[in-house]
Amino acid sequence: MNYPQGIKKGNKIPTVKNIDYKNRGMNLEEDLNNTNNYYIEKGIAYIYKKPTPIKLVKVDYKIAKITEAYFESPSTTDYNGIYKGYYIDFEAKETNNKEYFPLENIHPHQINHLKNILDNDGICFLIIRFTAYNKTYLLFGKDFFDFLNSSKRKSIPIEYFETNGYEIKEKYSPRLDYLEIIDNYLEVKYVKEEK
Amino acid sequence: MNYPQGIKKGNKIPTVKNIDYKNRGMNLEEDLNNTNNYYIEKGIAYIYKKPTPIKLVKVDYKIAKITEAYFESPSTTDYNGIYKGYYIDFEAKETNNKEYFPLENIHPHQINHLKNILDNDGICFLIIRFTAYNKTYLLFGKDFFDFLNSSKRKSIPIEYFETNGYEIKEKYSPRLDYLEIIDNYLEVKYVKEEK
Repeated sequence: MNYPQGIKKGNKIPTVKNIDYKNRGMNLEEDLNNTNNYYIEKGIAYIYKKPTPIKLVKVDYKIAKITEAYFESPSTTDYNGIYKGYYIDFEAKETNNKEYFPLENIHPHQINHLKNILDNDGICFLIIRFTAYNKTYLLFGKDFFDFLNSSKRKSIPIEYFETNGYEIKEKYSPRLDYLEIIDNYLEVKYVKEEK
Repeated sequence: MNYPQGIKKGNKIPTVKNIDYKNRGMNLEEDLNNTNNYYIEKGIAYIYKKPTPIKLVKVDYKIAKITEAYFESPSTTDYNGIYKGYYIDFEAKETNNKEYFPLENIHPHQINHLKNILDNDGICFLIIRFTAYNKTYLLFGKDFFDFLNSSKRKSIPIEYFETNGYEIKEKYSPRLDYLEIIDNYLEVKYVKEEK
């Protein structure tokens, strides 16, 4: 049976008393919205969430009401935007798995989308949170494809993120300052191209 | 009464005989899809259409069926993507008005979106087709905002597009080679920055 996000069968319903405010986890999407809003307000970057793709079947155009529609599997990632003129694109996922990130969470169309971005010199990556440890990693597109091309596994072990990704430490504001990692990446790229 | 796109009350239904294939107009969206597919196939650029934003009201999650939803006014533009590493973003609209482009076709949220892109050094523009003349213009974001800031008009006259925009001539393939104009823009920008 599917329970709404965050509620598990048999879980104690949190009351005001037993919520630990210090460590209460906002979910990844909330953290990213908070972070992206911070970037926009400070004029640092403009990165936003794309609408969910929906397939319309029946629409009553007289009253502009959709009466039958279905979720489509996404053909792009959830987030994109612009930072210092650069094209930025990423997909964000949480997993409660303690050992690996199951690849079934990323649709084939999304993999194709990421490949197109890499081929056109865009900056793309995954942001993956292992909720069991509340650890969030950024894995660049290139390293994601290196894994896909070198392994037949249907999941990426957490060690791969530890070795090849970058941990995004949680802060008060912005919650997940992932552009810090992009800054280092651009600096290294720039220095390499200068040589 | 609203008739489906392209069909006007009293219009002669086209038959195979009276269709002029040479001048048959594909609509702007089809032309842009054709063009963007061409760019992807040739590895020139990766520019794609975003999903239409929809507000969900009732969803039967057991069968993943949406039973009540409404169109939301768009908060971003229709197209974005990447060209030579640059962030590209535009809105495309047709008008059958012969003298001007009514500004009510661009939502306030979309204007805000374009402003955020300009502020973050992205390339953004409008592609506007005057269907009466089958003329299609590209107007850069900066020139669009110059108009908004200097005029209280609720429409942009076609002369403004002729003077400040760039006509995109139709070709066989790609149908609307708008990146030609972006190339010139990047060249001029690059030369200016070199000086």
